[in-house]
Amino acid sequence: MPKRIPTRQLIDGLLNGERLALARAISRVEDEAEDAARIVQAAFAHKGKAHLVGITGAPGTGKSTLVSALADNYRESGLTVGVLAVDPTSPLSGGALLGDRVRMTGHSGDEGVFIRSMATRSGAGGLAKASAEALLLLDAAGFDRILVETVGAGQAEVEIAAVADTVVVVEAPGMGDEVQAIKAGLLEIADVFAVNKADRKGADRAVAALEMMLETGGGAAQTILHHGELMDARAAVSDESGQGWSIPVLKTVAVSGGGVARLRDALEEHRAWLQESGALADRERTRLARMLQSLVEAELRARLERTLSPAQRQELVGRMLRREVDPYSAAADVVKRFAD
Amino acid sequence: MPKRIPTRQLIDGLLNGERLALARAISRVEDEAEDAARIVQAAFAHKGKAHLVGITGAPGTGKSTLVSALADNYRESGLTVGVLAVDPTSPLSGGALLGDRVRMTGHSGDEGVFIRSMATRSGAGGLAKASAEALLLLDAAGFDRILVETVGAGQAEVEIAAVADTVVVVEAPGMGDEVQAIKAGLLEIADVFAVNKADRKGADRAVAALEMMLETGGGAAQTILHHGELMDARAAVSDESGQGWSIPVLKTVAVSGGGVARLRDALEEHRAWLQESGALADRERTRLARMLQSLVEAELRARLERTLSPAQRQELVGRMLRREVDPYSAAADVVKRFAD
Repeated sequence: MPKRIPTRQLIDGLLNGERLALARAISRVEDEAEDAARIVQAAFAHKGKAHLVGITGAPGTGKSTLVSALADNYRESGLTVGVLAVDPTSPLSGGALLGDRVRMTGHSGDEGVFIRSMATRSGAGGLAKASAEALLLLDAAGFDRILVETVGAGQAEVEIAAVADTVVVVEAPGMGDEVQAIKAGLLEIADVFAVNKADRKGADRAVAALEMMLETGGGAAQTILHHGELMDARAAVSDESGQGWSIPVLKTVAVSGGGVARLRDALEEHRAWLQESGALADRERTRLARMLQSLVEAELRARLERTLSPAQRQELVGRMLRREVDPYSAAADVVKRFAD
Repeated sequence: MPKRIPTRQLIDGLLNGERLALARAISRVEDEAEDAARIVQAAFAHKGKAHLVGITGAPGTGKSTLVSALADNYRESGLTVGVLAVDPTSPLSGGALLGDRVRMTGHSGDEGVFIRSMATRSGAGGLAKASAEALLLLDAAGFDRILVETVGAGQAEVEIAAVADTVVVVEAPGMGDEVQAIKAGLLEIADVFAVNKADRKGADRAVAALEMMLETGGGAAQTILHHGELMDARAAVSDESGQGWSIPVLKTVAVSGGGVARLRDALEEHRAWLQESGALADRERTRLARMLQSLVEAELRARLERTLSPAQRQELVGRMLRREVDPYSAAADVVKRFAD
């Protein structure tokens, strides 16, 4: 076991951008260690300058390779990059099977790139909380750009990328019907589309299809989303960031780096637009509202666990199994105990 | 607007297996109508005989086609089939872009098949609750077999299928690294593997890879899952259902129906094994524990919304934005108001 760094020292190191301190700090937040709140509070108070870019899309579109190529491109301009790869695979595999992380090893030894995979530990809600906190830490550590990528295509995972300043939705030609269906949910959150694997057959058709979808309502849907109705219906946070930005559809070939410079330019243009239009603050507002919700829900879940012992829960479920109590009455019973 | 059916009449119709009543009842549950609890309570009290089969896997593996082929096969044996397709795309698209549903139209006009798509409305938690309730309704309506399929591959979506009596994980040859990573989370919940699109190159290799993974620990992982640690860590429900069942890896070609009869047989064998081993009750226990958790969380979220008005929430987020309050303190403030 490595020696435990005291919290104060860890925070100082984190705010100085020290990699080891950052890595340890993220682990403590992820593990919900005793000093997790203190670390997050310190990071929150030292807001950095990072442009937060979310990268999402269906599996098989080559997101990870694109993230790696983007990181390369930023590094060539002298910008530092933090990468958070959120892995929705189970707590049992612990993200250990994230084979595509291997592609990122080209960056090893470069102090200007920090890569972190995060696997879920306590359900989708826990992942949203932990990733939001990790992003605060990466920002406080002083990175210029932060790329957050989700491996999965579930709603919870997509929303993690969707709270970024700029959201890239990655597509690929010829992915089949199921993937098209998933795309519907992604259309609404895109600030930039990247049709990756654009050297494959069908790339032009994919671009044309996206452009048509954008013309026929995707843009309007985006506005609705960025009003916060999808990402946090409860927050009712006003956000004007869907207006005045024309969503580009770009072709990339991540494996060879083709089109990546143009994608990087589009991200910088969106960043400039966010700052000029004032939409940047709206994005942060939405992100903070969502973070608040995650933290409150986590606390309520923790209290719920303390309210109902495993034995009590098992007894209640046993009564449900024997049809002595219905699910609604059982839930009302738990809530009553909770409220008392 | 169609005339509103009174609740009592709706429940009677549902329990008689009337399709219109069933469809309306699911809608009311999904919409969280005033009589939703009453409908669920009535359905819960009239437990049916359905074998609940979850079908999950990465997008592009052909799950929907396989579900359709399985439904055909069940119908040929005279068994009635309910299908619940859970669509993780956004509330904005409302699941309307679920193109693969079209493939199911071969069943239209057959009274023995009922197909329902369910799109999320209020986040992943809401979807778990609504789909669990819809499954109770389908069971109470008397179907012999219920197939629940999720379009997405996120953790929340996978867990919806994972609470079934029997879980089929669908694979396909040559899906790429990202999909392989997702597979890791699916390995642990499979009772049966179907390598679909088995007429494609690489099918034998996919089968061999799965069989090797099963030999080297997949089975143990499954036992852990079915002890309830992944699906509901809080429930601490004991479940012995991972023991004594050897997970088959089957090849299917859903579009032509190839291998589907063998898959159906495997599902029937698993069903028989569940009954003989007593594991069936364990599965239901896990499912009910999870449902209880969903209902309690939904109620707590509803109470939370009543605790904090949109204006209060916006004000609090504004203070976070100005760094006047950190996320943890803001969350503590909300929880305090909630508890008082």
